[in-house]
Amino acid sequence: MAMKRAAGSSAIRSLFSSTFFRNLHVSGEKKKIVGVFYKGNEYAKLNPDFVGCVEGALGIRQWLESQGHQYIVTDDKEGPDSELERNLSDAHVIISTPFHPAYVTAERIKKAKNLELLLTAGIGSDHIDLKAAATAGITVAEVTGSNVVSVAEDELMRILILIRNFLPGYHQAVNGEWNVAGIAHRAYDLEGKTVGTVGAGRIGKLLLQRLKPFNCNLLYFDRIRMDPGLEKEIGAKFEEDLDAMLPKCDVIVINTPLTEQTRGLFDKDKISKCKKGVLIVNNARGAIMDTQAVADACSNGHVAGYSGDVWFPQPAPKDHPWRYMPNHAMTPHVSGTTIDAQLRYAAGVKDMLDRHFRGEDFPEQNYIVKEGQLASQYR
Amino acid sequence: MAMKRAAGSSAIRSLFSSTFFRNLHVSGEKKKIVGVFYKGNEYAKLNPDFVGCVEGALGIRQWLESQGHQYIVTDDKEGPDSELERNLSDAHVIISTPFHPAYVTAERIKKAKNLELLLTAGIGSDHIDLKAAATAGITVAEVTGSNVVSVAEDELMRILILIRNFLPGYHQAVNGEWNVAGIAHRAYDLEGKTVGTVGAGRIGKLLLQRLKPFNCNLLYFDRIRMDPGLEKEIGAKFEEDLDAMLPKCDVIVINTPLTEQTRGLFDKDKISKCKKGVLIVNNARGAIMDTQAVADACSNGHVAGYSGDVWFPQPAPKDHPWRYMPNHAMTPHVSGTTIDAQLRYAAGVKDMLDRHFRGEDFPEQNYIVKEGQLASQYR
Repeated sequence: MAMKRAAGSSAIRSLFSSTFFRNLHVSGEKKKIVGVFYKGNEYAKLNPDFVGCVEGALGIRQWLESQGHQYIVTDDKEGPDSELERNLSDAHVIISTPFHPAYVTAERIKKAKNLELLLTAGIGSDHIDLKAAATAGITVAEVTGSNVVSVAEDELMRILILIRNFLPGYHQAVNGEWNVAGIAHRAYDLEGKTVGTVGAGRIGKLLLQRLKPFNCNLLYFDRIRMDPGLEKEIGAKFEEDLDAMLPKCDVIVINTPLTEQTRGLFDKDKISKCKKGVLIVNNARGAIMDTQAVADACSNGHVAGYSGDVWFPQPAPKDHPWRYMPNHAMTPHVSGTTIDAQLRYAAGVKDMLDRHFRGEDFPEQNYIVKEGQLASQYR
Repeated sequence: MAMKRAAGSSAIRSLFSSTFFRNLHVSGEKKKIVGVFYKGNEYAKLNPDFVGCVEGALGIRQWLESQGHQYIVTDDKEGPDSELERNLSDAHVIISTPFHPAYVTAERIKKAKNLELLLTAGIGSDHIDLKAAATAGITVAEVTGSNVVSVAEDELMRILILIRNFLPGYHQAVNGEWNVAGIAHRAYDLEGKTVGTVGAGRIGKLLLQRLKPFNCNLLYFDRIRMDPGLEKEIGAKFEEDLDAMLPKCDVIVINTPLTEQTRGLFDKDKISKCKKGVLIVNNARGAIMDTQAVADACSNGHVAGYSGDVWFPQPAPKDHPWRYMPNHAMTPHVSGTTIDAQLRYAAGVKDMLDRHFRGEDFPEQNYIVKEGQLASQYR
């Protein structure tokens, strides 16, 4: 099979040689690809579509190996003796996932002298030092859109679980109890409540669209206002000041990426601006919240419920306070790794690898770092 | 205050004297009203809007007593020494609720010689022997519409909890674990799946409307087809044969009242007609299902998940198999008794009592038994 040089034309490339030296390492044909996923273990064989685990390996092993590429897949990613670290020095491509994040630090990027491409199987590349990757001329890309439906659905599920006070009822059922009052005294309908999203990108917009028939009062805060037609169709009101939106909301959903601006955004002070009894759903990134401030607010009742699938760090340690705070509905990081989402991001990774081998560009919206520049939402 | 005779004009009444003798007991002014609700206990004082419990007493005590009526409220409803039984002989009105059902049997109706009116605080009157009530000339009414939003929202929550495999993730979070594969191998998006409702009355229709933006394939089975305009707006396809619909569905939601036709409808044979791996949500009535057939199908995996808030009997005994079967998301009977629903049905009960005292008719859709006739959906 005829292989072209990876990623773009050499004419354009030479104009930016200082940031693109990594592409000069490209040998033309055989690549070493390292994938870091969560282990399937006893679950790996239960579902033929379970491609997101180490054993499933995104379903691309045969395709890669039939072209002569080497494909190492592991869940072992921590410390200098890990399989990831042992394979860094000659890896051309690393595929990682937010569900079992392989932290690609500046130090690791320095060691990975052949590295051309960092792909996220899914969405979210904050486990990668994007500035270091940009400086080193490495392309970083994700499968934009692959998790949008999954995460938006999951957020709506979590809103309903919190507002309808599902979990105390479930606990009664499994514990042989029956005490309707213990559930009903703090169970509410979603209809008629005010729901605000912090960030209205693709996931936030889809959440708002799915909320529309619930007859809520919908608000959104973002850097830019939606186009008026879309805003009208979605039926959400733009809020230009986050601090002005927060006290209006019965439910707040976090839908913003983790950046220098959003890290620790919901600290004690910000939470105190929310309505007493607020419910918070966060499937975006754990580090957007101050961990202890959230746990304290759940304990003192200022936050009446908190649910999400993102933590800092991940995997959450056994003693992470969010595991034990009152009125939470937490899970490990799973919302974007449903079977449907796995099939989407596996297909997206395969497509980008194929384009990379052929020297073709990726779909523009997939790039996080391209030609030394961070995508706008990460700047 | 001038009181008229209850419920309708005596001219019409005399035409049907055999079935309306109970109204001849009406004394004109002072009534004895017995309300049977669940106890609030330590939760009663936590929320001023928690009117659905014994202590909250629907928030109508002052209003009733200021008019000279007697208002007994209790949760004690079982057996001959219960407070309900002790107050039967001279009660004019009994208010009951599906969340803590006071079974009003033919025997109890016989004892309650003054009984004129049976009101359900909420929806669902299958804890009442409707034929006996009709024969005795007792009016039976419920607060139609009071639970529609609450139950439809709750059904959508349960669909999402099952299809996204929420509970195993929650258990990991609280147990200090982190095993994404244990969740993800059987977690799916709702988008693109086939959801069928058995019954498309007010709750079924609202569920379909709220499902619409999820881009599912929506089906409904009912005795009558929706008007074509509404069907098009909702985007659901009519199925005239239940057995033909069942094998198409990834998710089945039960939205039909309990009648002689639906009692035990989902037995082993009916469940075997569903797709292997089907998810079932039932907030309608527990007795529509064969209890053991459901537990067996969850154990052998034919049913991949079952969720609902209705059981037979209620309260569910400690050893009810649905408490312990795999992949369930059960709760006590709560979906129609959110705080919002309580405020709606308390207002509806107050309105019907007021009309009853004044001898005015109720809103037509509230009647379950009127002038000796059962409403059509109960026939």
